[in-house]
Amino acid sequence: MVTTQEFQRKYERLSDRSVTPSPESDIDADCLMAFGYEYQGQDSEVEIDTDEFTAVCPWTCLPDFGVLRVSYVPDRLCIELKSLKYYLLSYTGVGIVQEHAANRILNDLVAACRPNRMTVSLDYKVRGGIHTTVTVRHEQDAA
Amino acid sequence: MVTTQEFQRKYERLSDRSVTPSPESDIDADCLMAFGYEYQGQDSEVEIDTDEFTAVCPWTCLPDFGVLRVSYVPDRLCIELKSLKYYLLSYTGVGIVQEHAANRILNDLVAACRPNRMTVSLDYKVRGGIHTTVTVRHEQDAA
Amino acid sequence: MVTTQEFQRKYERLSDRSVTPSPESDIDADCLMAFGYEYQGQDSEVEIDTDEFTAVCPWTCLPDFGVLRVSYVPDRLCIELKSLKYYLLSYTGVGIVQEHAANRILNDLVAACRPNRMTVSLDYKVRGGIHTTVTVRHEQDAA
Amino acid sequence: MVTTQEFQRKYERLSDRSVTPSPESDIDADCLMAFGYEYQGQDSEVEIDTDEFTAVCPWTCLPDFGVLRVSYVPDRLCIELKSLKYYLLSYTGVGIVQEHAANRILNDLVAACRPNRMTVSLDYKVRGGIHTTVTVRHEQDAA
Amino acid sequence: MVTTQEFQRKYERLSDRSVTPSPESDIDADCLMAFGYEYQGQDSEVEIDTDEFTAVCPWTCLPDFGVLRVSYVPDRLCIELKSLKYYLLSYTGVGIVQEHAANRILNDLVAACRPNRMTVSLDYKVRGGIHTTVTVRHEQDAA
Amino acid sequence: MVTTQEFQRKYERLSDRSVTPSPESDIDADCLMAFGYEYQGQDSEVEIDTDEFTAVCPWTCLPDFGVLRVSYVPDRLCIELKSLKYYLLSYTGVGIVQEHAANRILNDLVAACRPNRMTVSLDYKVRGGIHTTVTVRHEQDAA
Amino acid sequence: MVTTQEFQRKYERLSDRSVTPSPESDIDADCLMAFGYEYQGQDSEVEIDTDEFTAVCPWTCLPDFGVLRVSYVPDRLCIELKSLKYYLLSYTGVGIVQEHAANRILNDLVAACRPNRMTVSLDYKVRGGIHTTVTVRHEQDAA
Amino acid sequence: MVTTQEFQRKYERLSDRSVTPSPESDIDADCLMAFGYEYQGQDSEVEIDTDEFTAVCPWTCLPDFGVLRVSYVPDRLCIELKSLKYYLLSYTGVGIVQEHAANRILNDLVAACRPNRMTVSLDYKVRGGIHTTVTVRHEQDAA
Amino acid sequence: MVTTQEFQRKYERLSDRSVTPSPESDIDADCLMAFGYEYQGQDSEVEIDTDEFTAVCPWTCLPDFGVLRVSYVPDRLCIELKSLKYYLLSYTGVGIVQEHAANRILNDLVAACRPNRMTVSLDYKVRGGIHTTVTVRHEQDAA
Amino acid sequence: MVTTQEFQRKYERLSDRSVTPSPESDIDADCLMAFGYEYQGQDSEVEIDTDEFTAVCPWTCLPDFGVLRVSYVPDRLCIELKSLKYYLLSYTGVGIVQEHAANRILNDLVAACRPNRMTVSLDYKVRGGIHTTVTVRHEQDAA
Repeated sequence: MVTTQEFQRKYERLSDRSVTPSPESDIDADCLMAFGYEYQGQDSEVEIDTDEFTAVCPWTCLPDFGVLRVSYVPDRLCIELKSLKYYLLSYTGVGIVQEHAANRILNDLVAACRPNRMTVSLDYKVRGGIHTTVTVRHEQDAA
Repeated sequence: MVTTQEFQRKYERLSDRSVTPSPESDIDADCLMAFGYEYQGQDSEVEIDTDEFTAVCPWTCLPDFGVLRVSYVPDRLCIELKSLKYYLLSYTGVGIVQEHAANRILNDLVAACRPNRMTVSLDYKVRGGIHTTVTVRHEQDAA
Repeated sequence: MVTTQEFQRKYERLSDRSVTPSPESDIDADCLMAFGYEYQGQDSEVEIDTDEFTAVCPWTCLPDFGVLRVSYVPDRLCIELKSLKYYLLSYTGVGIVQEHAANRILNDLVAACRPNRMTVSLDYKVRGGIHTTVTVRHEQDAA
Repeated sequence: MVTTQEFQRKYERLSDRSVTPSPESDIDADCLMAFGYEYQGQDSEVEIDTDEFTAVCPWTCLPDFGVLRVSYVPDRLCIELKSLKYYLLSYTGVGIVQEHAANRILNDLVAACRPNRMTVSLDYKVRGGIHTTVTVRHEQDAA
Repeated sequence: MVTTQEFQRKYERLSDRSVTPSPESDIDADCLMAFGYEYQGQDSEVEIDTDEFTAVCPWTCLPDFGVLRVSYVPDRLCIELKSLKYYLLSYTGVGIVQEHAANRILNDLVAACRPNRMTVSLDYKVRGGIHTTVTVRHEQDAA
Repeated sequence: MVTTQEFQRKYERLSDRSVTPSPESDIDADCLMAFGYEYQGQDSEVEIDTDEFTAVCPWTCLPDFGVLRVSYVPDRLCIELKSLKYYLLSYTGVGIVQEHAANRILNDLVAACRPNRMTVSLDYKVRGGIHTTVTVRHEQDAA
Repeated sequence: MVTTQEFQRKYERLSDRSVTPSPESDIDADCLMAFGYEYQGQDSEVEIDTDEFTAVCPWTCLPDFGVLRVSYVPDRLCIELKSLKYYLLSYTGVGIVQEHAANRILNDLVAACRPNRMTVSLDYKVRGGIHTTVTVRHEQDAA
Repeated sequence: MVTTQEFQRKYERLSDRSVTPSPESDIDADCLMAFGYEYQGQDSEVEIDTDEFTAVCPWTCLPDFGVLRVSYVPDRLCIELKSLKYYLLSYTGVGIVQEHAANRILNDLVAACRPNRMTVSLDYKVRGGIHTTVTVRHEQDAA
Repeated sequence: MVTTQEFQRKYERLSDRSVTPSPESDIDADCLMAFGYEYQGQDSEVEIDTDEFTAVCPWTCLPDFGVLRVSYVPDRLCIELKSLKYYLLSYTGVGIVQEHAANRILNDLVAACRPNRMTVSLDYKVRGGIHTTVTVRHEQDAA
Repeated sequence: MVTTQEFQRKYERLSDRSVTPSPESDIDADCLMAFGYEYQGQDSEVEIDTDEFTAVCPWTCLPDFGVLRVSYVPDRLCIELKSLKYYLLSYTGVGIVQEHAANRILNDLVAACRPNRMTVSLDYKVRGGIHTTVTVRHEQDAA
């Protein structure tokens, strides 16, 4: 069995195994696809959620896991779900603060499908006994 | 035991077993029935849900399963439930996108019972780790 | 063991055992009682629910089971609960459509206690994979 | 508004509206059907439950509502479910103590399908703040 | 074992063991205490609930058990919880209708802490298959 | 508003309002009734639970509230439930430790119906952040 | 609006829309695949469940929906999940009794992966107020 | 075993072991940190909760445990979560009334991140059978 | 606003605010009390749980929060709950590994009441995404 | 808007974005640490679970997410949790079948702490409507 001192040294060196987070430029918004909504003008709402989101905390260099919820009112386009999956997978390993990740996802999805309204909510698992959810909203400019 | 190569080939050929989806024209709106609402003018709401809805995704040619929720304010007619069941069964095997299925159901039910207001919500089981619900609303034209 | 043919015949004859539903006139609104509300003018709401309601579907001649929820704002009278129980028991065996039963209960209770506002909601157990709830509202005429 | 005395009298007379319970002979075991189990010898178990059971308490003459659970290991016969439904409906209005109803159901079902093993559990809704479940078991005689 | 007749007689005499309910004057509003709220003017709300409330139904002379929920917006005083507990204990054995108990509690608590707003909700356990909740509201007079 | 000193004095005197617990002799085992079990020899189990039990802690002189669960295998007698209710009501106000109350109830019920086996479980609501359940078992002497 | 008579006729003719169930020979056991289990001899258990099973009741000609649970102890082979999905899809439209479907699935899966032990449980949604689950077990012959 | 008298004496002296609460000045608002919100102007909300809050009741000198929920609309700054954790830990041992703790937390967090809006809710575990939650709100002055 | 560098420095210095854990000798087993069990020989079990346990992780110097469950079969003594509460409070601030804390509590409680059997389970809240429960058992030596 | 043909092409090319899975040799068992269990010989069990496990399916090249549960009876060593976290993180991106991942984790953990007994259960999120859990057990050789 190792001595207490060796144990302590090995314990402290564990954090060396954290990998350097990837830059935000690795987020792949180009893969997002949309298809034509055939019932334009009819009042509708699409709600999407997935509990398979992961990104890296830029301060601790450790991955966070979370649930993403998107809700939008389509105008002329709907988000294609397989492309959304690949878009979200591109966050794996990327270093980004939770508050900013929610905003970034909102902006990318709005650009992809130009909805009348969209809400993005990002709910991370407990860290240090604290649980946090960030919700961001977009409303189309009246024109 | 099969070789890895044979396994791989058989695995890839599995998708060949997907059946061609039926066309949307197989949806049987004619069977929908309505009966007279004896308390017309009294403020009421009917909520219906079933977790036995199935249709086919036109892109993957695989069946989706979901929960359908309908809520309406009757004017002079109520939807007869046995006919609703046969109507919904006619979606089995039909290839239709979830966003469009919700709209199609709304339009067929509105035509059948001319309600003051109706909401249709279609909630599909998880696909690729993503869960989606589509909600559509109809409001009778004031006249 | 019976032959398949005998089995089939017996199976089909099962429905003969359905009893003829009683007429709506068996509903016993006379037993409903109300007592004086001592705090008239104070803003209050009474919510009542029971999961022991049963009546008969007039088309299939089979009993339905359901949950009844009543919510009202008393004016000068409160509904006495033991009398409500006997009133609801009188629906046992009566043939009445769910949409109409909810309205009938509302009207009888409004007549019994003249509330400022009342809502009746009747939630039936699943039939043919379909679950239905009917909600009816009454608002006292401003005078 | 009625006087306190009239209220009291009417309140006491409510119990007069309880109907006389039907005799146990109204229970219709004859309608029970069974069909041949094609996989005899294979170790299997069938679990059935319904929350639509009702019978009458012989002491208070008021209906009880409950959940019935049946679990059995078929030998050569399986219980046909539509016939089971009609059998259970025949308890409506019958006066029988909960402890005895569970035993009666067990005996009738054992006679109908001769299982290797059967358990019947009858779970009544709360009465007087007390909730009761009765469970009875049958094991086929080794022969 | 007793005869059926003796059983019946003893069964009927059980109700003789109900105790006479205490009068409403046993309710001890004097013990209620309040302490100064140090953040007056800051928008706040206090929600209190306990599932240990009991009082007696004046018609059946049997105790009811329930959950009490109080929610208020303090002005200059907060209710002290230990005193609230003794206040509620004083309802044990008192005969009072549920609808009136909720109002009485509201009035006593409003007198004790003069809140900007208060809601009292009294939720009793099932009696005769029926579950009832009474909610009462108080709004401070604008002055 | 009262001074801090007066507040403190009134707060400390609250405990004076605790009532003296009644002696264990107030527990009324005489009212317990049993009726003949018609299916003696058939393997059965009766489970009873109520969440309306209350007694007094002899050390703090404050009432405790709890859930009582009884489960027994009848021999020749079943416990009559209305008499059980009156028996349990007789604990209101009686000072008895939770561990001893469970044993006392077991002994009284065993004496009343001589079951083959009985378990009594008494589950009290949280006190001082601690939740406690006491379970006691009786097995009939083989003879 | 239709007359009552026309309504009745249309209602009765609804059942004509039920499709003829496909024969059991449509069940496609050939597509089932297995892959080599690399840790043979290590004590393990695989549990699989899906709530997307559907087949047709041969008596009512209406589809049933259910949850399938499979649990097995692999010997040298594990079931490949994509092939299991296609196997289960082949039950869509097939007429087969629930009790027999569970046995058929067990036999097909045992043939495909020769496990040390396997359990199949098929849990159907409520029909006529009755909920049924069938569980079947296989144990490898000791040899 | 101790005598009853010794037991009683030891029981009463237990409260001597309560520790003196620390003063409110031990609350460490200085450690709170905030970081720049990169998406200022975009409509967003941050919800934080932790079930690891503890402080001391100044009247009983016993620790309370609770759940803290914070929800805010950031303007230019977001609260850093690790610093929030240390801030909350500094309440351990501090004597403060629940109603005032909620307000104190709100004020410290508002000072740290100047949000557009903030709500703090403090939900304590049951004491004496009573459960209490205090919610406080802050709205930025329009300027 | 602070510069990124200052932010980083302040962030890293947060950990300096962790307090030195107290030694295990602060655990106060002397306050544990037991009282005589009056029904010795009767088969019983006492289950106790509290979700208000807290101690300090000796490696991170941060407090952990958890649920403690104790279950024992009394011989001649029962644990007095108020003394148990003070015993558990004495862990606040003490540095002790979860695995050892569970064992320490078991040994202290066994010494205090000499039960026939005891189980202690200590369930800590999530740390670093990992949730851990430690369960320890004691069986009285047969003698 | 893109043409249907372009849409189809882009949709099919989405899968090209799947990354090549890392080899199993990336799994970092070296970082696992254990510390001495001070209560050796006392009967205990440690249960660990985390819902933050992710690895890659070698056939679809897509990440799976799951819950890992470990339960073991320590002999002389306990697993250190921070090192376990880093060990599990090393599965991110690694291509490994679920059935084999569970076995691999078991073997690595057994090597690290030599327990008397260990169970590892790996529960993956739904894929293609199918949910799977793999459980593996290790028992120390009696010697």
